[in-house]
Amino acid sequence: MSVNRAAATLVDAPRGLAGVVVTDTRIGDVRGLEGFYHYRQYSAVELARTRGFEDVWHLFVHGSLPDARQQAAFRAETAALRRLPDEVAAALPGIAAASTRSGPLAGLRTALSLLGAAKGFRPVYDIDAAGRRQDALAACAAVPTLLTALYRLGRGLSPVEPREDLPYAANYLYMLTGSEPGPERARAVEQYLISTIDHGFNASTFTARVIASTGADVAACLVGAVGALSGPLHGGAPSRALDTLDAIGTPDRIDPWIRERVLAGERVMGFGHAVYRTEDPRSRMLRETALRFGGPRVDFAVEVERRVEAILAELKPGRELHTNVEFYAGVVMELCGLPREMFTPTFAAARAVGWSANLLEQSEDPKIIRPAARYVGPEPLVRVPAAPGAGRG
Amino acid sequence: MSVNRAAATLVDAPRGLAGVVVTDTRIGDVRGLEGFYHYRQYSAVELARTRGFEDVWHLFVHGSLPDARQQAAFRAETAALRRLPDEVAAALPGIAAASTRSGPLAGLRTALSLLGAAKGFRPVYDIDAAGRRQDALAACAAVPTLLTALYRLGRGLSPVEPREDLPYAANYLYMLTGSEPGPERARAVEQYLISTIDHGFNASTFTARVIASTGADVAACLVGAVGALSGPLHGGAPSRALDTLDAIGTPDRIDPWIRERVLAGERVMGFGHAVYRTEDPRSRMLRETALRFGGPRVDFAVEVERRVEAILAELKPGRELHTNVEFYAGVVMELCGLPREMFTPTFAAARAVGWSANLLEQSEDPKIIRPAARYVGPEPLVRVPAAPGAGRG
Repeated sequence: MSVNRAAATLVDAPRGLAGVVVTDTRIGDVRGLEGFYHYRQYSAVELARTRGFEDVWHLFVHGSLPDARQQAAFRAETAALRRLPDEVAAALPGIAAASTRSGPLAGLRTALSLLGAAKGFRPVYDIDAAGRRQDALAACAAVPTLLTALYRLGRGLSPVEPREDLPYAANYLYMLTGSEPGPERARAVEQYLISTIDHGFNASTFTARVIASTGADVAACLVGAVGALSGPLHGGAPSRALDTLDAIGTPDRIDPWIRERVLAGERVMGFGHAVYRTEDPRSRMLRETALRFGGPRVDFAVEVERRVEAILAELKPGRELHTNVEFYAGVVMELCGLPREMFTPTFAAARAVGWSANLLEQSEDPKIIRPAARYVGPEPLVRVPAAPGAGRG
Repeated sequence: MSVNRAAATLVDAPRGLAGVVVTDTRIGDVRGLEGFYHYRQYSAVELARTRGFEDVWHLFVHGSLPDARQQAAFRAETAALRRLPDEVAAALPGIAAASTRSGPLAGLRTALSLLGAAKGFRPVYDIDAAGRRQDALAACAAVPTLLTALYRLGRGLSPVEPREDLPYAANYLYMLTGSEPGPERARAVEQYLISTIDHGFNASTFTARVIASTGADVAACLVGAVGALSGPLHGGAPSRALDTLDAIGTPDRIDPWIRERVLAGERVMGFGHAVYRTEDPRSRMLRETALRFGGPRVDFAVEVERRVEAILAELKPGRELHTNVEFYAGVVMELCGLPREMFTPTFAAARAVGWSANLLEQSEDPKIIRPAARYVGPEPLVRVPAAPGAGRG
């Protein structure tokens, strides 16, 4: 954007574009004061309580919950998309070997980028709306295959081929461990996945939409979104809340450990949220899920929650600090046997569905997203100082 | 962003955020009415006329042109960063094999993502400002190595190892072809590269800054920017202007060919720019560069430019349609022996330096970029319809 050209129309925005409406959306929203968020016109938490992952995925991508026929067709369609193109599968060992130092989101970023350029995906100059939707389905269907393959390759294990007869969440756990999970674990992970598909207009969703606004392909949008999610100011880390539980260790240590942290001005991981002024509705749902499992770890988590909320209410009155999604998400994923380094990638797998719906919605608007910057450096000169020495020039 | 929470402060922005100032910058600007753009406080075109690529790269990343000592040190530092980590080099054949269908920017996206996760780059939770600057240098230094290796591997050729004794542009041509370019070609490509490092606050630059605002690593930002650049509404295609020259074929066909296109309402590739109402200053500089080579192809290009501008002035009076950067960029790259499929990747190599300066500047601001969306779908319900059949739930 040229300052001169647009000088008359430049508008100063709030820092970080906070509160600046960049688009209309029909995908969903968060109502922080009510402790409520929704996907399309349905409560996200109720969807997680009552539906399977594929039903909600259908809701995001097609705009409606499936009827019985659509449900069967969509399950079959997405299950068939889980298998990787041969050339992508062949490249994964090299990617896994070169990505060991940088965390699993970096590996996903690379693998998704590769997948999106492979056979079956459309070249960027040849995509229509239906093709883009198909590519988004294929990418989301393959994310668990990519993630579990990279995880296993990084540990010297062979990837496990996807099974088409299992639902999304059960197949994810199957590919990770090599054995079919029990229904309780599969359902708990499914509920977590559903609850985290989307959550308002966050930075990774916005990234996907900016890239989509250029007409770029699905993989370009998703890879950018994974990159944004990997930033410490955006992507939470559900494993951090478990680190808190581990650090406290036993119920008698809850009070001194928390008071020391709070009085030192440290944040207690797993508590507090930027938007919710109530209990985080995801936390409430995932607590139910954890309580279905029961056991000493869950009892301890519930006790930590109870005591920490009381201490925070005492030390920070009026702040309404409750457990956030990280707290019971970590507990649930641990109960289901997911290794901690797969917590954030699991989150990313679900969120890919939300990003997809957003990039598809953005693609319907042919206007590029291109704000402005204000040049505040020294007044420019036409003349450039002579180069030092007898170098080029 | 919660609609409820922020209802009082939501601001409707112009479509695509046009003219909305998202940040201050000291990197540069475009003055469309004056036909002028600058890097820091210097005319970009004058920098391209008088300096080497590394001098201007230093200006972007360190904020000042180098003195003689800094120049030698920066050339040596960046030349030493050209060689790929072994594990990245080992993974490139697999990436090349899996990316043949999707154009070279998709290959670059994957390879850059891989590089940024490899040895020598900092994990995302362990980056300070100096480390981020170092990673940005390493990524930009390696882009030509990645691009030329992928290009050669895609044609069954072995990659050519970088040479540290050659300047950036000469080494790029050397790695592409396997033989050292003459000084005229190396200098012409260098001038093109300098002229295209940055150009105002475009969508890929904005993408890099949104991702940087989350605290993500350098590779995440650059990979997102490559994705945005790959979108047809953003990245131009310097090869399209050559396609126009080829389609016209001979001077006698200029008039009928152009009139037919313009009267049919088609855009003539290589002409017209969204910002400049004057001649594109990059076009002027690259015409000089082309004229240094001379020959029938350049004569034909000059004749096409002259005739097309006259016809456009006649058929679209007052529109001020001139050649844009694509026109002579294509001519110059062809004269230098670059294959057409490498035109846009060459552009991306230069632009990586501009993205780097932008992501580094953004990283100094700890505020995440996170605008809002307005939910306009049906009023949400808490109750979810029962799932069809005896499925899960």
